[in-house]
Amino acid sequence: MSEIPEAMKVSVLNGIHEVVTEERAVPEPGPREVLIRVGAVGTCGSDVHYYEHGRIGDHVVRAPLVLGHEPSGVVVARGAEARTLDIGTRVAIEPGVPCSVCAQCKAGRYNLCPDMRFFGTPPIDGAFCEYVVLREDFAHPVPDSISDEAAGLLEPLSVGVWACRKGGVGPGSRVLITGAGPIGLVAAQTARAFGASEVVVTDVNAQRLAVASELGATGTVDVSAQTLADSGFEPDVLLECSGVPAAAGQGIRQVGRAGRVVLVGMGGDEIPLPLAHVQSCELELTGTFRYANTWPTAIALAGTGEILLDRLITHRFGLDEVERALTVAARDPAVIKPVVLPQVARA
Amino acid sequence: MSEIPEAMKVSVLNGIHEVVTEERAVPEPGPREVLIRVGAVGTCGSDVHYYEHGRIGDHVVRAPLVLGHEPSGVVVARGAEARTLDIGTRVAIEPGVPCSVCAQCKAGRYNLCPDMRFFGTPPIDGAFCEYVVLREDFAHPVPDSISDEAAGLLEPLSVGVWACRKGGVGPGSRVLITGAGPIGLVAAQTARAFGASEVVVTDVNAQRLAVASELGATGTVDVSAQTLADSGFEPDVLLECSGVPAAAGQGIRQVGRAGRVVLVGMGGDEIPLPLAHVQSCELELTGTFRYANTWPTAIALAGTGEILLDRLITHRFGLDEVERALTVAARDPAVIKPVVLPQVARA
Amino acid sequence: MSEIPEAMKVSVLNGIHEVVTEERAVPEPGPREVLIRVGAVGTCGSDVHYYEHGRIGDHVVRAPLVLGHEPSGVVVARGAEARTLDIGTRVAIEPGVPCSVCAQCKAGRYNLCPDMRFFGTPPIDGAFCEYVVLREDFAHPVPDSISDEAAGLLEPLSVGVWACRKGGVGPGSRVLITGAGPIGLVAAQTARAFGASEVVVTDVNAQRLAVASELGATGTVDVSAQTLADSGFEPDVLLECSGVPAAAGQGIRQVGRAGRVVLVGMGGDEIPLPLAHVQSCELELTGTFRYANTWPTAIALAGTGEILLDRLITHRFGLDEVERALTVAARDPAVIKPVVLPQVARA
Amino acid sequence: MSEIPEAMKVSVLNGIHEVVTEERAVPEPGPREVLIRVGAVGTCGSDVHYYEHGRIGDHVVRAPLVLGHEPSGVVVARGAEARTLDIGTRVAIEPGVPCSVCAQCKAGRYNLCPDMRFFGTPPIDGAFCEYVVLREDFAHPVPDSISDEAAGLLEPLSVGVWACRKGGVGPGSRVLITGAGPIGLVAAQTARAFGASEVVVTDVNAQRLAVASELGATGTVDVSAQTLADSGFEPDVLLECSGVPAAAGQGIRQVGRAGRVVLVGMGGDEIPLPLAHVQSCELELTGTFRYANTWPTAIALAGTGEILLDRLITHRFGLDEVERALTVAARDPAVIKPVVLPQVARA
Repeated sequence: MSEIPEAMKVSVLNGIHEVVTEERAVPEPGPREVLIRVGAVGTCGSDVHYYEHGRIGDHVVRAPLVLGHEPSGVVVARGAEARTLDIGTRVAIEPGVPCSVCAQCKAGRYNLCPDMRFFGTPPIDGAFCEYVVLREDFAHPVPDSISDEAAGLLEPLSVGVWACRKGGVGPGSRVLITGAGPIGLVAAQTARAFGASEVVVTDVNAQRLAVASELGATGTVDVSAQTLADSGFEPDVLLECSGVPAAAGQGIRQVGRAGRVVLVGMGGDEIPLPLAHVQSCELELTGTFRYANTWPTAIALAGTGEILLDRLITHRFGLDEVERALTVAARDPAVIKPVVLPQVARA
Repeated sequence: MSEIPEAMKVSVLNGIHEVVTEERAVPEPGPREVLIRVGAVGTCGSDVHYYEHGRIGDHVVRAPLVLGHEPSGVVVARGAEARTLDIGTRVAIEPGVPCSVCAQCKAGRYNLCPDMRFFGTPPIDGAFCEYVVLREDFAHPVPDSISDEAAGLLEPLSVGVWACRKGGVGPGSRVLITGAGPIGLVAAQTARAFGASEVVVTDVNAQRLAVASELGATGTVDVSAQTLADSGFEPDVLLECSGVPAAAGQGIRQVGRAGRVVLVGMGGDEIPLPLAHVQSCELELTGTFRYANTWPTAIALAGTGEILLDRLITHRFGLDEVERALTVAARDPAVIKPVVLPQVARA
Repeated sequence: MSEIPEAMKVSVLNGIHEVVTEERAVPEPGPREVLIRVGAVGTCGSDVHYYEHGRIGDHVVRAPLVLGHEPSGVVVARGAEARTLDIGTRVAIEPGVPCSVCAQCKAGRYNLCPDMRFFGTPPIDGAFCEYVVLREDFAHPVPDSISDEAAGLLEPLSVGVWACRKGGVGPGSRVLITGAGPIGLVAAQTARAFGASEVVVTDVNAQRLAVASELGATGTVDVSAQTLADSGFEPDVLLECSGVPAAAGQGIRQVGRAGRVVLVGMGGDEIPLPLAHVQSCELELTGTFRYANTWPTAIALAGTGEILLDRLITHRFGLDEVERALTVAARDPAVIKPVVLPQVARA
Repeated sequence: MSEIPEAMKVSVLNGIHEVVTEERAVPEPGPREVLIRVGAVGTCGSDVHYYEHGRIGDHVVRAPLVLGHEPSGVVVARGAEARTLDIGTRVAIEPGVPCSVCAQCKAGRYNLCPDMRFFGTPPIDGAFCEYVVLREDFAHPVPDSISDEAAGLLEPLSVGVWACRKGGVGPGSRVLITGAGPIGLVAAQTARAFGASEVVVTDVNAQRLAVASELGATGTVDVSAQTLADSGFEPDVLLECSGVPAAAGQGIRQVGRAGRVVLVGMGGDEIPLPLAHVQSCELELTGTFRYANTWPTAIALAGTGEILLDRLITHRFGLDEVERALTVAARDPAVIKPVVLPQVARA
């Protein structure tokens, strides 16, 4: 391995619309932690939201914050009690570390841990930097068939896996996905990998719908041109990935008897729940908050090529270019997933 | 057994606010049906709604309709192929008979059968009459420990059982019940019988809250005097029995991480779903539509005295007095459950 | 459609090792039944067992019996109340019709109905004949992409679907299948279609293991040459398809913590359950009895080509050759699935 | 609080049939641990087994071992990072502390953690001593309504809760419990508390069956006088608590369609599984290994008096009398649960 330097470059959000690259000490791993040299980090809509607004709901950026929670890398050092990962292991990073001792953690729902420390969510720093430390059990080894960049995108894939689990997607399922952003596109692939026989994706962006078709959607509805109701599609499962309350409401009305609704997207204060339909069909609706125990499944699906993550990557940036990575989507409708490569200054 | 007459009295809803008693032929049971002499019939808010408005949502009263779907009685004749019930058997009547061959029926969700024939829901006649016919397998024998009147109330008890099943109520559960009408009061008892250690009931009617306490609620909140949020109660499960969208919304905000929300009440077009709370706690919400496979459990709970149905009965009426039975609740806040006794003209 | 004749040929088991072809009247469909001209019928080990032994457990052949429970065909007539299937519809036949009114049926477990009438199980006749009648809702339309012969094999595929459902097979599962007979081979394909990332099949027949590999098994163990324990494979799920108690016992010992064991094969009176292993790993084991609600999933999987049923068919026979169809497997180790084609005398 | 001494008395198993009381240093709590002054410790059949045989299966006593895993006590000191329990809190002790980071722990199945450290299981010391240290989150505060002795017995109650959860026991369940030892007696009470309407307990000891009836069993079968088959009881759920393979086999044969079998008892290498019955009824059988997340439920059930733990305590011993506590059951058939009180030399 190359030697570990004392200092590293870090991209820091100092305030709204204010990102700078600075130098910080490379962190020391705690006893059960590993030090990881970051290889690639996907950018996420929530990173952009912090950059634009300085907050997401109750999470407010009050001090300089490092964003980025879709990283991968290589283990370069280990704490005294770390024992499962060898130096040199390529890993995907699960970016939220829970307390592991509360009632939620013990029940297997560590994503609901009130003491969760999550990369790039204030006040916890994320991965737009050269090195990060991580509790060993949240660094998941990846096979060679998964690229560094794709390994970072196991994080959004985990969102898709979680959604499909919550929705009970399985062989023969008919799935509606509202929204063809990165999460919707990943969810569509995941639903197919879970065995769904029909996967219909909606959006107002024809380019994204074309990508959805390419990645396995069996149908698309451009809701700028056609109402969802007119499509006549009656799904078993709705994976709401748009974050648009109206889209959620329309999607829910399409779901048939004993159907399931999984809310993935965030956006708006309230979703208008159509009571008579929910009652007469006994719909089950669930919120989702991140994911738990999804990386092994995500790695299995991406490792065999059943799910194509690299196809989502449309732009690459160096660590000095994080601000451009966070703003490119607003300038170019063809952007799906920009990735930051921390080991290069400019990609 | 007494002889079966050729004609019987029937209470018919001829239009809004228009109930008459008339004579009709006693029906003949089909091959797998039994003829039941009706002993008692509970009245339900939906009966009142049809009386007041002539419709519930898409269900419109277009022809004279017999209301009443909470009946009990005695088997007095059997069709040629009926074989499980002896003449003289006291039975509770499960008032909805599905097709038994569609996908929903085969999956064990016969309550979602699109061809369901449900007592007192247009165009199917109900039980405000002296005799009804019923598919044999929907007449459930009851032990002597359950009175005729209580046997009719196994129908609302089934709603409570279904709600508790959908809510996953079990030993140690903390349950919030919004609304202390007949369904809320039954749900409170059922939740205790399912093992819930805390059952808090809300209403704006102090009399009903007092009954809730008497029947096993461990706490009550008079939401005309105190906000639910101020109560500080954080339930695992909400059983929404008020049918008031605002109450539903406030109840949902109280439910804690990984909690469940069961919508039982009907009322209003849309419930405002607080998205951030639903997401961050991963709440699971389910609609309910009647019930399936609940009578055996309801009979077990009522038969042992764990659930007290007779306590809910506040008024009794004869078959000539159905209109009074349907209007008494509006006149007297102490009414919980009026019962019609078809074998007497005036109770 | 061609005209329906008055008489048809039927292949009848008159006693052990005694099959004759005789003429019988074409049956009339009951009110909710359809008449189906049989296109193809798979043969099953249980058919062979009745032919060889005249019984399977408590099911004893006491009168002439028509075997055959893996049929497909075309609807040629309908009863007065049949309404969902047009004349000419190609259908797969689900060969067991339950009472639809007992507690098991109402709970969605119609496979456990005590009054089940199952094709080719005494005293109910099966499908080695030119025409059969069937309750309409058990005739499942199939798309053109599924051949007549494959449509019959949706029955064993249903066994595989049921096994995978009971085993909770899903994306990333590691599945062990003991036995590479027709059911094991179908189960291996099904497990892959359900998302399993590893599927290891065992048998003592190298030819069958080669077919397993061809159809998607990721590994095989020839247990005539190597012990299963030596393979080092630690599955999440065991689908026991061999019917050999010793194989079941060895398979169970391989399953890891929180694993599931699904018993599919029949054979032997008792399986020796290794208590300490079952306890310390909290294994869950389930018996399986036929299937419920599997045809829609089976049709989805076979219709898209994800599961290849035609590949299993190694031999074809006419209706006069049923006895050869039942005995060929004993003479030729390359036999997987012989199919009977009732519309031809000799295939 | 009284002061914490430097040394304490400990009862040590030095070899088969060799228990001595010696002095050891009072342990120091680790950062997230608390020090607990032990109030009462139930004795368990496994303690007796180690005393008699020096091993249970693969768990071999190779060095002096402190037994006792059913303790309660009072928090008397806290580690630097412990923060939830005040000094003076009365607690029940959950005696197995897992790693909290492996796949089983993260999935909510911490009872299956391969690195579990369990009181009184070699090489981990138990609680037959005056003070123990414990990770803070495994010390559960108990209300005043639960005595010190009963608080210790929340451990066997947890076994009963786990069994009922695994068995899906709920309102209306019919439950068979084979074996009326301490676990069977606790399981019978728990099944009633979970809502079971029928609970039948079997044993060969009439005294214990009488206790079962007193504690809520609705029926008993003395299998030294009557066969279980003759009882005619067809349960939904079997909780096998005897550890006798023949009893397990007979119990399984009684369970009806879609029934569940929960193996709680340990004893014998193999259970003979009646294959035809398991298949035709699609029984689901599960092993159990300790428990996970049961204390809150156990505390709720015991705290309200729904389950009577004190009734099980038949004998009390001081710390100098551990050997007598471990041998009294063999001498006196009326023994149910002897308890050790470490704060007294002789009780």
